[in-house]
Amino acid sequence: MKKNWRKLPAHAFLLFFIITQTLAYSQTGRSGYVSLDGFGPRDAADEVRWETQFRAVPQPASAREHLRRLTLEPHVAGTPEDYKTALYVRDQMRSFGLQSELKEYQVLLQYPRQPTIVEMIAPRRQRLQTVEAVVAEDPTSSSRRIIPLFNGYSGVGDVTAPLVYVNYGLPNDYEALKKLKVDVKGKIVIARYGQSFRGVKAKVAEENGAVGIIIYSDPADDGYTQGDIYPKGPWRPPQSAQRGSVQYLFEYPGDPLTPGAPSIPGTPRLKLSEATDIPRIPVQPMSYGEARKLLEALRGPLRPKGFQGGLPFAYHAGGTMDVRVRVKTDLEYVERTIWDVITRIDGSVEPDRWVVMGNHRDAWTFGAVDPNSGTSAMLEAGRGFGQLLKSGWKPRRTIILCSWDAEEYGLIGSTEWAEENADGLRRNAVAYLNMDSAVSGANFGAASVPSLWKLIRSATRDIHDPKTGKTVYQAWQDRVREALPEAELTDPETGSDRPIAEARINALGSGSDYTPFLQHLGVPALDMGFGGDYGVYHSAYDSFYWMSKFGDPTFAYHVAAAQVWGTIALRLADAPGLPFDYTDYAAQIKDFMTETSRTAARRRMADSFDARALNDAIKDFMEEAVRVDRRRREAVTEFEMARTATNESSRREGERLRRINDALINTERALTDARGLRGRPWYKHQIYAPGYYTGYAAQPLPDLRRAIDDRNTANAREAAARITEAIKRATEALSKARD
Amino acid sequence: MKKNWRKLPAHAFLLFFIITQTLAYSQTGRSGYVSLDGFGPRDAADEVRWETQFRAVPQPASAREHLRRLTLEPHVAGTPEDYKTALYVRDQMRSFGLQSELKEYQVLLQYPRQPTIVEMIAPRRQRLQTVEAVVAEDPTSSSRRIIPLFNGYSGVGDVTAPLVYVNYGLPNDYEALKKLKVDVKGKIVIARYGQSFRGVKAKVAEENGAVGIIIYSDPADDGYTQGDIYPKGPWRPPQSAQRGSVQYLFEYPGDPLTPGAPSIPGTPRLKLSEATDIPRIPVQPMSYGEARKLLEALRGPLRPKGFQGGLPFAYHAGGTMDVRVRVKTDLEYVERTIWDVITRIDGSVEPDRWVVMGNHRDAWTFGAVDPNSGTSAMLEAGRGFGQLLKSGWKPRRTIILCSWDAEEYGLIGSTEWAEENADGLRRNAVAYLNMDSAVSGANFGAASVPSLWKLIRSATRDIHDPKTGKTVYQAWQDRVREALPEAELTDPETGSDRPIAEARINALGSGSDYTPFLQHLGVPALDMGFGGDYGVYHSAYDSFYWMSKFGDPTFAYHVAAAQVWGTIALRLADAPGLPFDYTDYAAQIKDFMTETSRTAARRRMADSFDARALNDAIKDFMEEAVRVDRRRREAVTEFEMARTATNESSRREGERLRRINDALINTERALTDARGLRGRPWYKHQIYAPGYYTGYAAQPLPDLRRAIDDRNTANAREAAARITEAIKRATEALSKARD
Repeated sequence: MKKNWRKLPAHAFLLFFIITQTLAYSQTGRSGYVSLDGFGPRDAADEVRWETQFRAVPQPASAREHLRRLTLEPHVAGTPEDYKTALYVRDQMRSFGLQSELKEYQVLLQYPRQPTIVEMIAPRRQRLQTVEAVVAEDPTSSSRRIIPLFNGYSGVGDVTAPLVYVNYGLPNDYEALKKLKVDVKGKIVIARYGQSFRGVKAKVAEENGAVGIIIYSDPADDGYTQGDIYPKGPWRPPQSAQRGSVQYLFEYPGDPLTPGAPSIPGTPRLKLSEATDIPRIPVQPMSYGEARKLLEALRGPLRPKGFQGGLPFAYHAGGTMDVRVRVKTDLEYVERTIWDVITRIDGSVEPDRWVVMGNHRDAWTFGAVDPNSGTSAMLEAGRGFGQLLKSGWKPRRTIILCSWDAEEYGLIGSTEWAEENADGLRRNAVAYLNMDSAVSGANFGAASVPSLWKLIRSATRDIHDPKTGKTVYQAWQDRVREALPEAELTDPETGSDRPIAEARINALGSGSDYTPFLQHLGVPALDMGFGGDYGVYHSAYDSFYWMSKFGDPTFAYHVAAAQVWGTIALRLADAPGLPFDYTDYAAQIKDFMTETSRTAARRRMADSFDARALNDAIKDFMEEAVRVDRRRREAVTEFEMARTATNESSRREGERLRRINDALINTERALTDARGLRGRPWYKHQIYAPGYYTGYAAQPLPDLRRAIDDRNTANAREAAARITEAIKRATEALSKARD
Repeated sequence: MKKNWRKLPAHAFLLFFIITQTLAYSQTGRSGYVSLDGFGPRDAADEVRWETQFRAVPQPASAREHLRRLTLEPHVAGTPEDYKTALYVRDQMRSFGLQSELKEYQVLLQYPRQPTIVEMIAPRRQRLQTVEAVVAEDPTSSSRRIIPLFNGYSGVGDVTAPLVYVNYGLPNDYEALKKLKVDVKGKIVIARYGQSFRGVKAKVAEENGAVGIIIYSDPADDGYTQGDIYPKGPWRPPQSAQRGSVQYLFEYPGDPLTPGAPSIPGTPRLKLSEATDIPRIPVQPMSYGEARKLLEALRGPLRPKGFQGGLPFAYHAGGTMDVRVRVKTDLEYVERTIWDVITRIDGSVEPDRWVVMGNHRDAWTFGAVDPNSGTSAMLEAGRGFGQLLKSGWKPRRTIILCSWDAEEYGLIGSTEWAEENADGLRRNAVAYLNMDSAVSGANFGAASVPSLWKLIRSATRDIHDPKTGKTVYQAWQDRVREALPEAELTDPETGSDRPIAEARINALGSGSDYTPFLQHLGVPALDMGFGGDYGVYHSAYDSFYWMSKFGDPTFAYHVAAAQVWGTIALRLADAPGLPFDYTDYAAQIKDFMTETSRTAARRRMADSFDARALNDAIKDFMEEAVRVDRRRREAVTEFEMARTATNESSRREGERLRRINDALINTERALTDARGLRGRPWYKHQIYAPGYYTGYAAQPLPDLRRAIDDRNTANAREAAARITEAIKRATEALSKARD
């Protein structure tokens, strides 16, 4: 699926200048002294040696070979080709000396029985293509196994109606059309991809009474307006479209028939008609080469501002009888087996503390970028861990590497596993580290909970960026800095350069496998990768050829991805004291709250909830976070010193550190509420959730923001109270770190 | 030509919230008391009666008939058809009972001998069109007298070279190309229209060593990306291009051979080779239908960000041998007679004080919008004045209505007249009121010196807006307000609505006939009109048909334009005390200075000039302006009261008011410096000039800004010193209003 760290939010440039506190990151000074957050000086020196050894293992040639093998055939979830990739991952992991097993689930999927029929009825009868073109240069593009263009979990039906162009299909777009007296009730709508998760587009179309929806890729968004098109360049050509699930994953992800429970034998299934996370109207993706024929013919009012795309004519809203279209989807819902691959490295000191790494393996077609660049990186990281084990490395905690299946349909492999292991994960999980599309270019980006910000920055400071020769961190920071206008780089009063701020890490929304861990269970999570010019998302051209030509011709970024990911996992697995910083978390919640209060004030809802109680809770949380961070750092040093002292003091310091570590883990858990979010009980986290009308992008303080958007004062009051409670619980959990 | 009040500057939304001071504007309260700035209560009541009578005169039917007559044929400056329009205007004015005469100048013009040859040489040989297509619905578009596509004062030559795409052709665009190692030396460049005056594009191309330049209209700027294309909609179709002068009017406007002097018999002419305000390389406009053939074939690096236009492919920079092109211009420079039409209404009390109204009459083709919507409005205003005179109205001051010729070539008719009458204008001119393209839609906009802001707002509060039923002012203010993001409309702290700020009036740059008055002579000036969706600028489709279909089908806005313009002229002609407010001027200069200091700080040039002296001078100017404004208002009241008292006190109050009025006029004059701006002595004004690299848009504090852009500390010091002197002179001039 898609990752939200690619998108720089509009306010990122502002936030970029919030100067963060001094960082603890690994550095070897002139004195040879090594400092690494969570480690005492001697442990740090050991860790640096292990990490250095680890980072030497991943190689471009083997990363390339993994990717080549994984992308030989399309491997949609639940197919024999998918199963073959599972065996490849398992067998590779075993060949590195690691324990690796398949884990099966029986889940509801959906496949085309026949390619969808899209037919223009008026102004003239014409069948439109619902398959992608063969590209001579790209050998796999002619495969007969490429699945026709469809949207997973689309409704099945045969509808004919006038067509309305609804821009990105956001609620505001429908508002704009209402002002022009364009009604979509009983019509088929055509929306362009972008700005929201496609499931949201289907949902909003349904809410507005549309009987079907076509979703096309406008050239302004990922076609020629962005750059040269495939195969001349990396962007989407006219006869290419974006597949993808239209599950309402903002309601709940996973198997639509088993919300909250694992899809294993014995678990009762909902009836299909009872599932609330799938659309009932036909939904169909389309290329801009075909969509153009429909859009160019539309009449009705001229598009409102912001609706114009990159096709060479003025867009119109349609809605008249001039353009009518038929959409007939012929899809079957089937229960199929899917295969997660679970690889374990047991911890030597705290085997009951789990550092979980995850990447999905299933793809809509060949999946060179999405997701198998990440699979290749995970295999290279696994190879690195195997070599360390052979050299005598004993990780303090357990590392679990997960190759998820059926992510594309709705995070199914990860969700079912997380639901099956919910109790264990709540007790034991330290963090979940996700990499989906690890490489589509050279630009590092990340999204995470704020407690992991410093860890991500510190690890990327230790990885070499292949293209620039700087560190990954430096290249990342410079890139954000270069995008800033001149006016933002200097202080207006003094003319001097502003201090260089940290590179920004985004909030986690949804769209990849971190969701069940963070938002259902309260496990600290991150998602990251190297992005670039990538216009073939979910098309037949997300292929090995594309990757070798545009995404990562030298495979050096696959290596860098394995290094960053593995380094973070090593630090979390080895550090005596977990390098979680809740002062960043408190500051981030404070910023979210400031922004929310502003919106509430604009909507005249400032008095509808108890902002003071919430702000007081944040303040207490911050104070506790500052205290605990100091205590944590002291405890790490004392723990190392105590090891050479008496057994008793060593034991005491060990226990103290364990108490602090548990408090740090439980603080994130405490931000969940068992009752879940309003109307979507599967989502438990009170700070982070996918926005109801964005799908990918995070909506921080989700229930409060939504209540304000809905102008519902009663809901705002209750949401604020629940968030306040959650933050108080988090403060309480954090305070357990006290002696 | 073009007007810069259409363009909302990027910082307009910020400035929009600078709360301006209380306004004096006409209103009839419940008590029946009338208040009108510059008039005592009884005079105000008289004025309101005259104005009401005046505003009833202009009618849609006669405005329509003027426009129909003026747009029957193309009337390029210096042609027999142009002469016919001069006679029409003169005879109409005479028929209204006004004195009206032709005024001739002999000036250098340029016409095509043969249509320009533009030929693609590689990748294939193909001649490209240099004429516009006939549009069946538009009867005049088939006229054989439509002048072929050319740029006035283009160089004459025949060049063949590789082609480079330079975006808008701004200095920054060439910088971006240099980073890609694309050199334009010896090449032909192709630039798109927009962002700068076309003469600037030619100049910058020349400075960079290009041997020729093609300027085309990209569909993103005024074609289908903006809306439906002609004849379905008002925007530019594929086979249409923008003619226009490429004179370097930022050096000096008017006849290229007589800078600073009138082109009358006896004035010595420069040799053509001595003129410094015209390009030497061939310059040729082109449609996007034709330019597409060249642009699509370009190779070389992918365009930098911001270079992509609206054609359906990824733009490339070119510069390689893949695309070569030939441009052959066959144009003749000729001395021709042009005809201004000057209409006078003598003042009864102060005949030696002139209120000058101006609009040009010559057009590149039919000129329905540009400029004859303004000519029609001026004729209707003239008809109104004629009727008032018949009813016994005696204007206090003289009104001069000017129908300029050869504006399109470079403000020639106005510049030569202003140069011929320089002494008289310096002594006597109260203000210059310009309307060029008076109507292309329903959206009022204005640019002026700040001393006239309150007058413009007050007059537009008294004119009915045909479409909305509100006042013109209210519709204007609402439009700006609606464009603001929600966040800007409410106070972030309180959630309450921000106070409604005044509609913004822009700074005067250049591109129309106010330039010789304001920037050469220091006459307070304004420019205004009603804008809209207008994609046929300087094309064969700027026709009566276009206006009747899109611009102003009911001709109600032609009436509104005549009413606004005439009302402002009446107030300036009749008011005992001139309604000039220099507190707005001082505040505006202060804002310019704040912005300039910020830029200087960013460039590390804050210490290169004496900002304190400049700021002190502005402060003194503001204090004097506040004093004088109070005194002016008192003097108006006392003047009216004194009329019923003794002759002696009446005479004394009259003299006092005259002294104040003269001070107000002379303050603007004092902002000019006889030495002129650096390297362009014709431009005398120290606060306002067209930007050297923008052409249309104003560059406030021009020499200082330019020195900072050039990072030239010596020039910055001198520029700041001269501006300081000018402001001190203005303060001194204003202080003459004291008793």
